[in-house]
Order: sequence, then structure tokens, then C-alpha cells
Amino acid sequence: MISPGADLNPDDTLQQLARLLAERRVADPATSYVAGLLAGGDDAILKKIAEEAAEVLLAAKTADTAALVHEVADLWFHTLVLLAARDLGPQPVLDELRRRLGRSGLDEKAARLRK
Amino acid sequence: MISPGADLNPDDTLQQLARLLAERRVADPATSYVAGLLAGGDDAILKKIAEEAAEVLLAAKTADTAALVHEVADLWFHTLVLLAARDLGPQPVLDELRRRLGRSGLDEKAARLRK
Amino acid sequence: MISPGADLNPDDTLQQLARLLAERRVADPATSYVAGLLAGGDDAILKKIAEEAAEVLLAAKTADTAALVHEVADLWFHTLVLLAARDLGPQPVLDELRRRLGRSGLDEKAARLRK
Amino acid sequence: MISPGADLNPDDTLQQLARLLAERRVADPATSYVAGLLAGGDDAILKKIAEEAAEVLLAAKTADTAALVHEVADLWFHTLVLLAARDLGPQPVLDELRRRLGRSGLDEKAARLRK
Repeated sequence: MISPGADLNPDDTLQQLARLLAERRVADPATSYVAGLLAGGDDAILKKIAEEAAEVLLAAKTADTAALVHEVADLWFHTLVLLAARDLGPQPVLDELRRRLGRSGLDEKAARLRK
Repeated sequence: MISPGADLNPDDTLQQLARLLAERRVADPATSYVAGLLAGGDDAILKKIAEEAAEVLLAAKTADTAALVHEVADLWFHTLVLLAARDLGPQPVLDELRRRLGRSGLDEKAARLRK
Repeated sequence: MISPGADLNPDDTLQQLARLLAERRVADPATSYVAGLLAGGDDAILKKIAEEAAEVLLAAKTADTAALVHEVADLWFHTLVLLAARDLGPQPVLDELRRRLGRSGLDEKAARLRK
Repeated sequence: MISPGADLNPDDTLQQLARLLAERRVADPATSYVAGLLAGGDDAILKKIAEEAAEVLLAAKTADTAALVHEVADLWFHTLVLLAARDLGPQPVLDELRRRLGRSGLDEKAARLRK
């Protein structure tokens, strides 16, 4: 399912995941977790995002780094489902993050947040 | 600051951002937002993650897709700061997501979540 | 400010607080925290509720019971502000909780939540 | 189960609920939702608090006031379960809220929050 070339670009996992989520939009909600979430509407997805954010907080309070990684993955996963519900992949989010990559970008954010 | 070649691999934004966050760990909290967050300890970062998750929910309730993208970027950004506080970049999270890329992976997750 | 009789009914704190919040709706946002929140609109209040819920989680992870009580008070306080923005006090919430007071009520909730 | 006199003091619902929760601590988790939550440990309760806070946000985005009241009741209910897990009722929270009842109290809070 994953092309061999994927290993050469390990960072495009988010893109591949987004493509898979887009395919799942037309899958059977009875057998696909993602199709079920998308069929449930935004609120079902948003509740999952809130739940996963809380699980990140709780996992961060333990010494179990693997659990924390797992919960962050769950959180990113469900934000990708939310984007998929709007026909979006991760690219606009990555573009926004890239915009902040420069020192000035982070400083601008700092200034904005400190207001 | 961003090499011209970066445009050829747009998906490694998360890796580049993680490297920048790692550098900021030794920056002056007075002038760097990230250094300030990291100096504030886990709870400061975790509160930001909870806040950004809530802002994703609120943005999703508007028709403003750009605002939603912005809030998802804020959420991912602060989870990267949390990982940076543990000397981690996005790779373990991407590895976990990649593990779910196969149909069986998503089904396994579905089964786990429906328990 | 609090009538002496209040001491005889210590539990009506929520009602008194709600009356105070209702008065503050017409106060100057520049000098009243509550007036400022209400002037900021629902999203400002909702972000505070999400923040305070996160602070309850974080406080519960410490041994500091007084801090936990403080955060729960903050959370209840901001839900009362949300209700005040709809011209409501705590009574409908208390009525709903009272409905659950019977064993059957809690069992019904259990059944609903386990679905 | 609720004494007829309860109607004369409608605001002590929280106290009565707390007493019921305290009783449920020794109930069978298989048949009591509260006993199950308490047996599940703090994290189970904290996840519910985060979920219910998110549901308050989502309900506030609809015109359904009854749904909002229901979700606020769910949120208060689960904070009472958290307090019950520490052998506490609502009184310390009400005491903290009462402390804020005076104008000066709310102003102090405003000053604290604006820092």
C-alpha cells in the first residue's frame, strides 16, 4: 500500500495519511473508523480532538514517553480527519508552520501572543 | 535561514521546525517565545495545547478555513514544543502515524477505540 | 455586601454569584473582569472554560488540594458567566443535577453513557 | 430518597449530590456509573471533565439552551466526582466562590488574571 519510494521521503507521512483519509471518506462507516467519524459530522471529530488533547496532557504527566508520542499521534491524526472533512490535507498547516520557521516569524508570534 | 532546497521537500517542515525549537532551548526567554515556554515548564506548554485545541474547536464552528488552518498550526506547533522539551522531534509521531497508514492499521485503531 | 442571612443558607452561593454576574453585565468592561468577559462574546468565555478545565486536570496531578479547589471554582465561575450571557443562573443546572439524584437517575445516566 | 424538605432549600442540590457520590464510592462498579468512574482512577474522571468541557463549548455554539444546561450539569457532576475521590464535597469550592462575591473579590480576580 505504501510505495517503496516512501522510505526515501520519510517526512511525507502526513501527505500519505491525508490521501488515505480522503479515500476513506467514501468507505463504509460500519467497517472504517475514519468513515464513521466523518459520517458523524464535525462535532464527533471535534470531541475526539478535545479528548486527545486531554490525553496528551495526562500522558505528559507520566514518564512514559511512548505513551505521549502515541497520544500526540492520535491528536494529529484527528486534526487530519477534521481537515479531510474540509477536503484539505496537511499542506496548508505545514505552509503556515513554515512561515514561522524564520527567527522573525517566531518573534512575530511571540509579540502577537504577548499582547 | 531556510535553505533554497527546502522548497523541494516541502513536507520536512516539521523536522526543520523541530531543529529550530531545539536551538531555541538555549535562547533567552526574554526575547524568544519558545525559550520562554520551555523555561515555564511542562504545565505552561500543556495549558497552551489545551487552549489551542479549544481554539481549533471554535474555529471549526466558523466558515473561516484560514482561521482553522491557523489554529491547527498553533496546536501542532505547541505539541512540537512539548516534544522538544523531551529532546524529541516529530519523527516518533510520524513513525506512529505511518504504522497506521495501512488499512489494517486503521482497522486496528478502530477496534481499539470501539472497545 | 452579603446579607447576614446568607450565613443561614450557605449553599445559595451560586445564586448570589449569579445575581452579581447579572449586575456586572452593565458594568464598565474597563474596570470589571466579568463585564469584560461578557463584552468579549461567547468565544472569550468558552476559551476560559477550556483553559480552566485544563487547569483542573493539571492541578489534579499535584497533591495540592487547595489549588484543585481553586481551579474547580474558576471552572464553575466561568460556566456561570456563560449562563449569565444567556440570562440564566445556576437553577436550571441544579434542576438537572437534582433529576439525577435518585439512584434511577444515576443509573439512567450510566446507561446513556455506556451506549 | 430526597426528603420533601429539600424543596425548601433548592440550592443544596450540590450537597445532596455529593453525599450520594460519597455513598457510591463503595458501590459495585458493575452497576454504578459513579463507582465505575471512581474505580477507574483520576485519569478516567479527568478525561470525562475534559470531554464535558468540550461538549459545553459545542453546545454553546447551538441555539439549544437545554442542551447547554445539560452539558454544564455533566461538567459540574464530573468535577463533583473528582472532589468525591478526594473525600471532598462542594463546600470548599462554594467557599472559594463566596470569597469572590464581593466587588473587591471580583476586582482582585480581574487584577490577578490580567497580570
